[in-house]
Amino acid sequence: MSDRRRKPAAGRLALRQGKVDMSHGSGGRAMAQLIEEIFLKHLDNPLLRQGDDFAVMDMPPGRLVMSTDGHVVSPLFFPGGDIGELAVNGTVNDVAMSGARVLHLSAGFIIEEGFPLADLDRIVGSMARAAETAGVTIATGDTKVVERGKGDGVFISTTGIGVLADGVRISGKRAAPGDAVIVSGGIGEHGVAIMASREGLGFETDILSDTAPLNGLVAAMVAAVPDIHVLRDPTRGGLAATLNEIAHQAGVGIRLEEARIPLRPEVAGACELLGLDPLNVACEGRLIAICAAEDAERLLAAMRAHPLGRDAAIIGRVVEDPERFVTMRTGMGGERVVDWIAGEQLPRIC
Amino acid sequence: MSDRRRKPAAGRLALRQGKVDMSHGSGGRAMAQLIEEIFLKHLDNPLLRQGDDFAVMDMPPGRLVMSTDGHVVSPLFFPGGDIGELAVNGTVNDVAMSGARVLHLSAGFIIEEGFPLADLDRIVGSMARAAETAGVTIATGDTKVVERGKGDGVFISTTGIGVLADGVRISGKRAAPGDAVIVSGGIGEHGVAIMASREGLGFETDILSDTAPLNGLVAAMVAAVPDIHVLRDPTRGGLAATLNEIAHQAGVGIRLEEARIPLRPEVAGACELLGLDPLNVACEGRLIAICAAEDAERLLAAMRAHPLGRDAAIIGRVVEDPERFVTMRTGMGGERVVDWIAGEQLPRIC
Repeated sequence: MSDRRRKPAAGRLALRQGKVDMSHGSGGRAMAQLIEEIFLKHLDNPLLRQGDDFAVMDMPPGRLVMSTDGHVVSPLFFPGGDIGELAVNGTVNDVAMSGARVLHLSAGFIIEEGFPLADLDRIVGSMARAAETAGVTIATGDTKVVERGKGDGVFISTTGIGVLADGVRISGKRAAPGDAVIVSGGIGEHGVAIMASREGLGFETDILSDTAPLNGLVAAMVAAVPDIHVLRDPTRGGLAATLNEIAHQAGVGIRLEEARIPLRPEVAGACELLGLDPLNVACEGRLIAICAAEDAERLLAAMRAHPLGRDAAIIGRVVEDPERFVTMRTGMGGERVVDWIAGEQLPRIC
Repeated sequence: MSDRRRKPAAGRLALRQGKVDMSHGSGGRAMAQLIEEIFLKHLDNPLLRQGDDFAVMDMPPGRLVMSTDGHVVSPLFFPGGDIGELAVNGTVNDVAMSGARVLHLSAGFIIEEGFPLADLDRIVGSMARAAETAGVTIATGDTKVVERGKGDGVFISTTGIGVLADGVRISGKRAAPGDAVIVSGGIGEHGVAIMASREGLGFETDILSDTAPLNGLVAAMVAAVPDIHVLRDPTRGGLAATLNEIAHQAGVGIRLEEARIPLRPEVAGACELLGLDPLNVACEGRLIAICAAEDAERLLAAMRAHPLGRDAAIIGRVVEDPERFVTMRTGMGGERVVDWIAGEQLPRIC
């Protein structure tokens, strides 16, 4: 991104009525103006202000962690958040799930011709606030514009980097028989908030997305129990897909207790109306932690002491199972397989 | 991305006739299969095989460099390359323009429902070959699917990281009066190849995109002249936009000699037919270098000794100019202002 001293093209951007046009992706003056009057206005920091196509950063010692996520959520604005906030939190969380300290993000925008400048301004403002809340900087970025009908408003790809302290080695592979499975709070709120806000669904709730940056919670958890085995955020596919992924990665089974899984009654009710299993519904501010049984109460206490882990609960345990099944003892006392969904259920949830 | 031991959903992907559907972005089994049978098949490496949502990397000492780019080129396959190759080379080059050693990329895919699996397979194969050629690994990735009519085949966002040796400080800000301006080869070939391959333009050439990874060339240049002031690749907006950016960033003027700018006659001819100024047309495998006049011949010799710098030439010099104009002495002996384009000229060139 380029320098503040550059002269604007001709007057200021029409932030109220204006729309993004193809010239904003051309590499010329109009793009420079868009960058200056929207992106730099909100995101300004010493790394962005270097003004080159890259950012140069001093890094603290430790292994580097990198993660990337494309954000295509629809609608762009939803109860409890918007695509800008989600794009920051989603990637902060993916990096944080390694146990790393998250430091910097890059952000790439693919904008559809005709997108209102006012909406872009609002989204970039959300990103700035989310980055500040998470304690990260947006160090470098890119903007592309595609013709009307070749995109859908705006897509945002974010990549995050962080630094991992020695001795922390968190991975899905480390789930081991006997380990406790913990979730940090109520499930399914993000997915239900999105579904409820989609036009034509004909139902309304006051459920808000749980989108939040989990790096602060993770730091508190790693301080309490440095040998956490697994952390993962149950986004697309929800708790069911995430636990099946871990079971397959580690070659173990997982047994859940339905009664222990935190679930707000409004979310349970909305899922019933929509014909969804809450176990398949995405969260954007929750994490699953797996640790040795003897560490579980200490980890749980650390989580409950953090605002984003207040409702944390031990929901099950890892077992030996060469078939790698995730199963759940239901409220009625039976046991059922918790499969990941085979096909499409909740498209464009993030 | 997830583990190889995971069982496929039901048989193998239909790589010949199959199409991407919404389930491939769902977080469930179908997505796991797409990742395994296309992404891991081509891109497999120890970092991806970690199987978590993040990659953990040991980094050599030095400052970290990060750059990101979204790729929306149309058409996806063009003479001399495709979007996969471009997505790797484009970001390798952005990181390399800092003088850094480029190490790892992340890759995020936004795929339109109905996109042929065979095309995706071909594109990811191209990425794998391009990464191997550039000596980088694709360390982590993400896949999203959007409904038909909400995207355009595939968009690929790549973010690159590299490590910068002490003493190298390359930035657009460092262009100083008296410096020499060098370009590494013939301009405009990528842009003309794209324009020629678009349907309905009714003209054909045998010009190929110049897409190439420039990190090897940059390493040779930095070895010869550690104190290079500026490196930048003239992509969107071409040489004109890139030099104007630098002039604004550094607060200087630039004077070019038209006769010295390498330009293949076929490119010149195609630009005339298309009504384009070759100075505005994108390159994807060329760079501009600016260095002290006394270093210029040594830098030029190092560039010409590299296959990607064979046609390198000194094309002008940096001058004092509070107005920051880029001007050019034309072949006819006159002098004209080289402006960057104000609006749209070559949409979706990269």
